[in-house]
Amino acid sequence: MRESPRILVILSGCGVNDGAEIHEATLALLALAQRGAVVTIAAPDIPQRRVFDHYAGAEVPGATRNVLAEAGRIARGAIRNLAQCDPADFDGVFLPGGYGAALNLSDLALAGAAVQVDPTTAAFLTQAHRSGKALGAVCIAPPILAKVLADAGVRGVRLTIGNDPGTAQVIQALGQIHVDCAADACVVDADHRVVTGPAYMLASDIAQLFRGIDAAVAALLAL
Amino acid sequence: MRESPRILVILSGCGVNDGAEIHEATLALLALAQRGAVVTIAAPDIPQRRVFDHYAGAEVPGATRNVLAEAGRIARGAIRNLAQCDPADFDGVFLPGGYGAALNLSDLALAGAAVQVDPTTAAFLTQAHRSGKALGAVCIAPPILAKVLADAGVRGVRLTIGNDPGTAQVIQALGQIHVDCAADACVVDADHRVVTGPAYMLASDIAQLFRGIDAAVAALLAL
Repeated sequence: MRESPRILVILSGCGVNDGAEIHEATLALLALAQRGAVVTIAAPDIPQRRVFDHYAGAEVPGATRNVLAEAGRIARGAIRNLAQCDPADFDGVFLPGGYGAALNLSDLALAGAAVQVDPTTAAFLTQAHRSGKALGAVCIAPPILAKVLADAGVRGVRLTIGNDPGTAQVIQALGQIHVDCAADACVVDADHRVVTGPAYMLASDIAQLFRGIDAAVAALLAL
Repeated sequence: MRESPRILVILSGCGVNDGAEIHEATLALLALAQRGAVVTIAAPDIPQRRVFDHYAGAEVPGATRNVLAEAGRIARGAIRNLAQCDPADFDGVFLPGGYGAALNLSDLALAGAAVQVDPTTAAFLTQAHRSGKALGAVCIAPPILAKVLADAGVRGVRLTIGNDPGTAQVIQALGQIHVDCAADACVVDADHRVVTGPAYMLASDIAQLFRGIDAAVAALLAL
């Protein structure tokens, strides 16, 4: 990539149980800034599939929130509607995890290997991949790349979500290759220009999480 | 402090414009973990004073959220009701900023030097100070310490919020001493066991923010 690579971070809300995982998103922004990337943050303008009370540990029945507005909290207001972003303006893309990746950006948590990706997100990622941009994803977000690439006719991509058997099976069912990976490492598929890592699928604390996220960000920027 | 100091992080919601500043909170958790602290996260069980749409950049009329439930997003669910926390169980306290500090934990944004602090937060901080615990706060949170200490009869505490004249004046009006401070530094008042720093009152990006937060956390743990 160029000296100051332009990276788009795509968020899925704000909070591990119904949106983007806050630590993963924030530490990706930190690693990207420390490593000299120019970052833009975006999210699709869609409703969350659920709202979760993170103190009570339960879904809030009937509640609704908007993915773009909630993701704007992590972005401190500096967020763009993903539908208005052009892959040509970026050198790479990074997706943190959190249930928002499996409930808002896709329906992975409900559909498993029959996963469908939010159309705006799918269109952006497909175009980005086709124009040679690097794609990065951690935690529960890599199956989104597995699906988008499969739908684009790209199979055999090496991806990781750590070592969770169920999610690994989804990746395999989509025609990609799951590779087990430690919490503070990442998996690089240089041929397909894809970097993935386990993040909080495996990390036992925030310091270990940062080592893994930083490794994934470094690998993404090195592509 | 002991080898694995026990630090309570008090949050005020989740999002810079109506709650705890997410980057400040997350990076404080990172710095504390990297430096070997054992962290507990808590928030008072009170309503937010407002709900802000962080994409639209405007208050959401009539909306309401709970500080403890929203703060639980940053804590990934591992959060305690501040009313049930005992200062005796901790060696120090850390408050990130965000408007939640000036709207939920206090009414600083509305009342200025006539600021009142949320009773649960005030009671915890007063007892913590009286029993010799170290207190840390960054961004817009230091005036909370200024007020709580003033009400406890403690004056002349050296505090910083960076160099914002209005907020510095509030600190002075409360009988404390404001000290100008650079974005990646902090101010230590060893006599009163208080550490403060500017954070996003001055930091121009998240990498600089982390240097400042890490300096404040290091100083807090060194007390």
